[in-house]
Amino acid sequence: MRYVHIENPGPHNRLIIENGPKPECSKSQILVHVRATALNRADIMQRYGKYPPPAGESEVLGLEVAGDIIEVGANVTQFKPGDKVYGLVGSGAYAEYCPVEASLAQNIPDSWNYTLAAALPESLTTVYATLFDLGKLRSGQTLLIHGAGSGISSLAIQMAKLSNAHVITTVGSDDKMEKARKLGADQVINYRKQDFEDLIEDHSVDLIVDFVGGDYFNKHLHLLKPKSKLIQIACLKGSSVECNLALIMRKRLQIIGFVLRSQSLEEKNKLWDEVHKHWMEDLRAKKLTPIIDSEFKLEQIEAAHQHMQSGAHFGKIVVHVD
Amino acid sequence: MRYVHIENPGPHNRLIIENGPKPECSKSQILVHVRATALNRADIMQRYGKYPPPAGESEVLGLEVAGDIIEVGANVTQFKPGDKVYGLVGSGAYAEYCPVEASLAQNIPDSWNYTLAAALPESLTTVYATLFDLGKLRSGQTLLIHGAGSGISSLAIQMAKLSNAHVITTVGSDDKMEKARKLGADQVINYRKQDFEDLIEDHSVDLIVDFVGGDYFNKHLHLLKPKSKLIQIACLKGSSVECNLALIMRKRLQIIGFVLRSQSLEEKNKLWDEVHKHWMEDLRAKKLTPIIDSEFKLEQIEAAHQHMQSGAHFGKIVVHVD
Repeated sequence: MRYVHIENPGPHNRLIIENGPKPECSKSQILVHVRATALNRADIMQRYGKYPPPAGESEVLGLEVAGDIIEVGANVTQFKPGDKVYGLVGSGAYAEYCPVEASLAQNIPDSWNYTLAAALPESLTTVYATLFDLGKLRSGQTLLIHGAGSGISSLAIQMAKLSNAHVITTVGSDDKMEKARKLGADQVINYRKQDFEDLIEDHSVDLIVDFVGGDYFNKHLHLLKPKSKLIQIACLKGSSVECNLALIMRKRLQIIGFVLRSQSLEEKNKLWDEVHKHWMEDLRAKKLTPIIDSEFKLEQIEAAHQHMQSGAHFGKIVVHVD
Repeated sequence: MRYVHIENPGPHNRLIIENGPKPECSKSQILVHVRATALNRADIMQRYGKYPPPAGESEVLGLEVAGDIIEVGANVTQFKPGDKVYGLVGSGAYAEYCPVEASLAQNIPDSWNYTLAAALPESLTTVYATLFDLGKLRSGQTLLIHGAGSGISSLAIQMAKLSNAHVITTVGSDDKMEKARKLGADQVINYRKQDFEDLIEDHSVDLIVDFVGGDYFNKHLHLLKPKSKLIQIACLKGSSVECNLALIMRKRLQIIGFVLRSQSLEEKNKLWDEVHKHWMEDLRAKKLTPIIDSEFKLEQIEAAHQHMQSGAHFGKIVVHVD
């Protein structure tokens, strides 16, 4: 099968299409003929050698798939070959065939296409885990999430608004301000023009889910209400920060670290089941839907990555494998 | 009435006994003729100007009292003048008379004296809030808490052991090692002789409740298990720390700030009620009991503070007011 190989992982890496054996499918897995996958920031970190796959995972990039089942493991009863599914994987999605734990797959509703289904698994699970499972976001509370155009943020804004929360977000261009407002964001700040810290009242935010880190960290501590939460899911601006523990104590803040990929199958199953239980109705009705920025072919994977790195995208970047 | 006045709060302060008017008692309060109070580290911070009392609180030091009720507020039905009580206050305990919210007072059991009762409120409430309410410490889990001789730690070690947790603690002398073991600590480290980080396995601790901070902070991040908690309640070694957010994310840690004094009355009531519900039986039976290091008279308050600052104490330093 064809798959994307990282030649020379690290600062001088290159993505190339290679041919390799079709992967095996364990008793609890389904083997999916991948029709579409989607990009995540983690993929870029991985090719630069900064985010190695967890033990037992393949070296092939890609965390989410949509496609057709060609084989089911001996213990799998809920699916059969030919089913169209989408699923969450720890690696291996940038390929023609990808094994998926059956417990982390779902049938694709008739009204969806592969593009939409492939754009969903990673963001949907992460947003549910951080905003709701850990963050306990409730109606009337205020969420701050940066970069409205990221896959996670563009879904988080919708899910927070459907939960009647107040949403503050940031973008890097005026063009994106309009798009963020259309998603429902109540306050949109162009971070290239103004410091978000100046435009948000201190002690006014109930929950921050952040993938920026760096100098944003201390700004966040100031903006958070007493007893509120900062959930750190990545650190695009750096992970080494000066931290004022006195402020964390005085405000009784909770700083919570989150990653999805290295979680146990049991933990991922719980999140996957819960998010579908709570959100499938809105997803089917397309009240909640992943925002698609652009679509590439597998052979254009380098261009797709460059597009993500440029920061020009708003929504998910999907890659078609066939 | 006599009370302890902080002359010139700040680096050159002095504690002196002064005379002032007896405080008023609101409708929800009881006025207590204080027979004993006890020292907390916060008192020392306050005299040095580093921990001002919350808005609405008196400038008089002291966070816990035991004594006799001489007056009850119009809305107080559960107490009457003459009752012997102990209680938690936001200030004002270093005095002959102290108003106490009736909801934060308890009758002193017959088998206790004022010394024991005065030593309990602040540590008992803080340990309950951090180990159990926030920390969710369970049987079989491992707790690390430094300075076994502090009022909080000497009570926390007992409460953790009664909950069948594994307890690791540190002390500053060999003499104190024996005392910490008698309290039930499973592993006791003399931090003046060895680095605790070298003697505790990485990724082995479920909960750290810490009042040290400073360079301990990053050691704690290494020692904690994935998905475990660090609850920061003070920072004797400094509150400005370098923080590795990548480590916090990778291990999915929770860093939680805690202070008791500035909490709302409603929050304190909840903790006060819950801790008595869960622990009163063990307290009455003296299976759980505050460790008393030494007793001073109100006129010796400066000596009592110096004793705490010397670090030579093991257990609470109690001050008798009559």
